[in-house]
Amino acid sequence: MEFDLIRALQDRLPATRHDVVVGIGDDAALVQPAHGSQLAACTDTLVEGVHFLPGTAAADLGWKALAVNLSDLAAMGATPCWALLALALPDADRAWMAEFADGFSALAQQHGVSLIGGDTTRGPLTITVTALGTVSPGQALRRSGARVGDGVYVSGTPGDAALALRLLQSGAAGPHHAPLLERLARPQPRVALGVALRGLASAAIDVSDGLLADLGHIASAGMVGIDVHAERVPASAGLVQEDLPETSRQALQLTGGDDYELAFCMPRQHETTLAERLQETSCTFTRIGDVVSGSAVRALDGQGGQISVAQPGWEHFR
Amino acid sequence: MEFDLIRALQDRLPATRHDVVVGIGDDAALVQPAHGSQLAACTDTLVEGVHFLPGTAAADLGWKALAVNLSDLAAMGATPCWALLALALPDADRAWMAEFADGFSALAQQHGVSLIGGDTTRGPLTITVTALGTVSPGQALRRSGARVGDGVYVSGTPGDAALALRLLQSGAAGPHHAPLLERLARPQPRVALGVALRGLASAAIDVSDGLLADLGHIASAGMVGIDVHAERVPASAGLVQEDLPETSRQALQLTGGDDYELAFCMPRQHETTLAERLQETSCTFTRIGDVVSGSAVRALDGQGGQISVAQPGWEHFR
Repeated sequence: MEFDLIRALQDRLPATRHDVVVGIGDDAALVQPAHGSQLAACTDTLVEGVHFLPGTAAADLGWKALAVNLSDLAAMGATPCWALLALALPDADRAWMAEFADGFSALAQQHGVSLIGGDTTRGPLTITVTALGTVSPGQALRRSGARVGDGVYVSGTPGDAALALRLLQSGAAGPHHAPLLERLARPQPRVALGVALRGLASAAIDVSDGLLADLGHIASAGMVGIDVHAERVPASAGLVQEDLPETSRQALQLTGGDDYELAFCMPRQHETTLAERLQETSCTFTRIGDVVSGSAVRALDGQGGQISVAQPGWEHFR
Repeated sequence: MEFDLIRALQDRLPATRHDVVVGIGDDAALVQPAHGSQLAACTDTLVEGVHFLPGTAAADLGWKALAVNLSDLAAMGATPCWALLALALPDADRAWMAEFADGFSALAQQHGVSLIGGDTTRGPLTITVTALGTVSPGQALRRSGARVGDGVYVSGTPGDAALALRLLQSGAAGPHHAPLLERLARPQPRVALGVALRGLASAAIDVSDGLLADLGHIASAGMVGIDVHAERVPASAGLVQEDLPETSRQALQLTGGDDYELAFCMPRQHETTLAERLQETSCTFTRIGDVVSGSAVRALDGQGGQISVAQPGWEHFR
């Protein structure tokens, strides 16, 4: 912690959780996990030019670096508690750092997450957050566990972030695209949904690489097939208004990354319980398909024919 | 986890700890901390050209990225348990990755640490490890707590890593410097010492920025002064053999970073107990000074005069 970014962040956060025994400023942080709980841990990196466009607002990066990790905890059904931040920066730009802290803190506050440690260093702009959460033994959601006959669901409206990226890259983004751009810049990790899915979902994952690609992980982990009915995947008003050809819209929704929605499998009789649990939230979910025997993830059109999708999700180094 | 480095690492590690409920391959890892224990967490980044010279052996980087974090846990008196790795690499060089995995695993195996998650991505070479450990409530070592009259101690032989870096940078490193170079490339985190210091030390820190600089953190956290007797700081055989002028040797020992020894304060009557606890280890410790009233860290020569040190430790962006 060579300058005071980490402390600046801490100063902008809400009161530190009562379970933080030692926070920022010692060799390591100390926390007291809830009695008997299991600890969920994940880490994700954002690199300039790889995960975000150069010139992205610092506040949005602060938000997103935490969001992608809270999304992973959500996909486990864990309650986020603490985070650590490792930040490499080309130079000590204090204005940039203050904005970054604002964005990070805004999301941390929403979820009651305490920043407990970190490391700032000189280097190419690279942001790594480690998020820690808790879940009672036996309650975590796994990628495996999908059973033939389960429904396949997704939260929210996939495809928005991919469309926003395309608009930014082509220079076509206008003021009326603000809601779409917000979906890319400030994804909402589906923490409440993950918690609501405890005891209901048979499998869950967050949609970071693309809907079909991420459902593929559920299929292979559960040794099942998945049929997705493409026309059932809900589209946002912003996406509909773009009036894209159907194949383009489907490609965005089925293969676009960065939405950080949850995709999950669940016996259909749990739908009512889940809806009840989500009543107080803004979170929506839609059944988009079924778990079937086999090992493939297929996207089907309205007539039951298979849609061939050129690019099944985005991977580095390929 | 876009390619299988994380899995390759896992394959090279010893049997996964029994307390890992979900390891690599889901959205997040799940572990079961020991009943009632507190969790210690830290994160540290190594950036090429900042923390290590370009061309540093991948195996040494794998070792060191974990070592600097285990050193932070050691300074808290925590027992290391689990680690997460975030790695940005310019290209998918599988030979490099295999070597990196070998180095990381060699140290992880020594300390029974399980790699439970990670993220690999394309980008400038940047390595961030998050290490998690456990300690019983009330047993952790803090930076604060030093009391006037305590002895001030350091483990091992400070200055070796700084000398090794100088030899590498000046092209003067020869085959007989291997033990010195090893100290820079593969620091030994003083985990056993940290555990042995539970209940004995009043304050502890790991020496990453330089002995005086890091003792400065103990002094300010404890609102005390510290007098260091420069001639008592033990020098390794490799350092002595260089036959440096006294001021150069002292500068290396007092301000050189990257040694990852522990500096700590302790009532002198605990010396025997600590020595007994360390009997089975190769760890040494030396009293180099005293906690005094005041707020300054002073380096004293054999006559009690104050040594003026040009560069009190190394900091980024300065």
